[in-house]
Amino acid sequence: MSRSGELLTRVSVPTDPSAATKTIISVVDDLLGRVADTGADVTAIGIGAAGFVEHSAGRMTFSPNLNYGDPQIRDAVRARVDLPVAVDNDANAAAWGEHTFGAARGSDHLALLLLGTGIGSGFIIDGRVLRGLTGAAAEFGHMVVDPAGPQCPCGLRGCIEQFASGLAIAREGRAAVEKDPASSILSFAGSVEEITAEHVGRAARQFDETAREVLRVAGVMLGLALGNLVNIFDPEVIVLGGGVIQTGEPMLGAARDELNKRLAAQKRRPIRLDVTVLGKDIGILGAAALALHLGDAV
Amino acid sequence: MSRSGELLTRVSVPTDPSAATKTIISVVDDLLGRVADTGADVTAIGIGAAGFVEHSAGRMTFSPNLNYGDPQIRDAVRARVDLPVAVDNDANAAAWGEHTFGAARGSDHLALLLLGTGIGSGFIIDGRVLRGLTGAAAEFGHMVVDPAGPQCPCGLRGCIEQFASGLAIAREGRAAVEKDPASSILSFAGSVEEITAEHVGRAARQFDETAREVLRVAGVMLGLALGNLVNIFDPEVIVLGGGVIQTGEPMLGAARDELNKRLAAQKRRPIRLDVTVLGKDIGILGAAALALHLGDAV
Repeated sequence: MSRSGELLTRVSVPTDPSAATKTIISVVDDLLGRVADTGADVTAIGIGAAGFVEHSAGRMTFSPNLNYGDPQIRDAVRARVDLPVAVDNDANAAAWGEHTFGAARGSDHLALLLLGTGIGSGFIIDGRVLRGLTGAAAEFGHMVVDPAGPQCPCGLRGCIEQFASGLAIAREGRAAVEKDPASSILSFAGSVEEITAEHVGRAARQFDETAREVLRVAGVMLGLALGNLVNIFDPEVIVLGGGVIQTGEPMLGAARDELNKRLAAQKRRPIRLDVTVLGKDIGILGAAALALHLGDAV
Repeated sequence: MSRSGELLTRVSVPTDPSAATKTIISVVDDLLGRVADTGADVTAIGIGAAGFVEHSAGRMTFSPNLNYGDPQIRDAVRARVDLPVAVDNDANAAAWGEHTFGAARGSDHLALLLLGTGIGSGFIIDGRVLRGLTGAAAEFGHMVVDPAGPQCPCGLRGCIEQFASGLAIAREGRAAVEKDPASSILSFAGSVEEITAEHVGRAARQFDETAREVLRVAGVMLGLALGNLVNIFDPEVIVLGGGVIQTGEPMLGAARDELNKRLAAQKRRPIRLDVTVLGKDIGILGAAALALHLGDAV
């Protein structure tokens, strides 16, 4: 990315799940070569990584879904290239991307939720990224909203991720089709086992009532979690991203209604709820923006 | 309070619930007179107030339980005395007191929960008080942990305040005595209507099993909420204060066990859980410390 925020080039490589740091280094090598071809100078490198990141050390401390091999990402990259390197959690980077380039540009109090397979989150508080003592903060997806709720792979029950993530919507879509085999969810998916959130979303767009009800329930729970978020952070704006937002109004409308109902019940001011305009680039734009701000207290 | 943190004098006056700012001004007048008698100079005034406070303006924006009359507390005090004045939410001030003088002294990542009639909370993130855009952040007591839970006066259902506050313990104590009239909760209270959390705590200390079960259940829900808190903030230390902590181990032990169980399930590091050592002075020490740091970005 240029200093003015223009994305010059992009490389997309599947992560090696047993040695993610190797993948990062090969992507960095590739990008440096491409940028050199344009004649531009590289002044800093920003990396957004899945898992807990100790930002000050550029080090992974915990990553349930990926093995990084070498957790010292910053040092590993700096051993190849003598440039400043910023490493942060991918959702933190995305929140910074929103803050710098997105719908919430200029807001120093924003919350970003990435509704994908799971739920990632990043928070900007008073212009700074919330990281916690060890980089293990901002795990909003694992806020328990129903102690009797479904088991979550994280070890707890009833995390919001079990109600409003892609996996949760797929699970509820499968359960709904067992009761209503005529639902177009099933015709989109082919078989019950193959149902994903995308199939539920497609069926809902064609006014399939079963699909719409699955998304409505997910949206109501999301609205409840957003109410908790407001009580904790009092943000200026909440931004939603991730693949699940493609399911559109059946879920997002229900979430917005539930949030507004809760804010009104508590006599709280209304909160802006936006969908990201950065699309899939949100993470890389954020990582680049963090690199640009290296040395500042962000 | 002196610059070295010594509490020189104290005045305690019941707040006028229809004109709280008047009470604040009369206390300030009283304190200024007392300090003048000692020959000391007053350099700044710190005020912790119940409700949402716009810190930068020293102004109340929302206070469900008190009518301040004049919400412009800072300006009202400065109209009487030409000194710097810091106004903050009372639980924020208490968190700052813990940070400056208490069990969590020196920690830049701490959470304070005040378990009283309701539940107040203050958070220090990276050495700064979490206030949000308008001073309405850090309302951890109104985090919904069970959507089907008891109605809360805030307008929502199932807030953690409805499980682990003094009012919630009293309510559950009354319900428990209906089923077990032999419980010593009733002999301490005199009548079912008069049961408070204190009576439940006294009965539990005498090994009344009914009382201990009420406190255990409250503790488990508190532990659940503390798990959410860790997932959001990744603090170094959590400090508990407020009258309810007098109920002691039957509740706090259950909370600690539940939190540890949750952290272990998620493979998170253990978190220090302390009880405040500042007692009832936590709020005034914090307000004074905020005054001392006026002008710094806290």
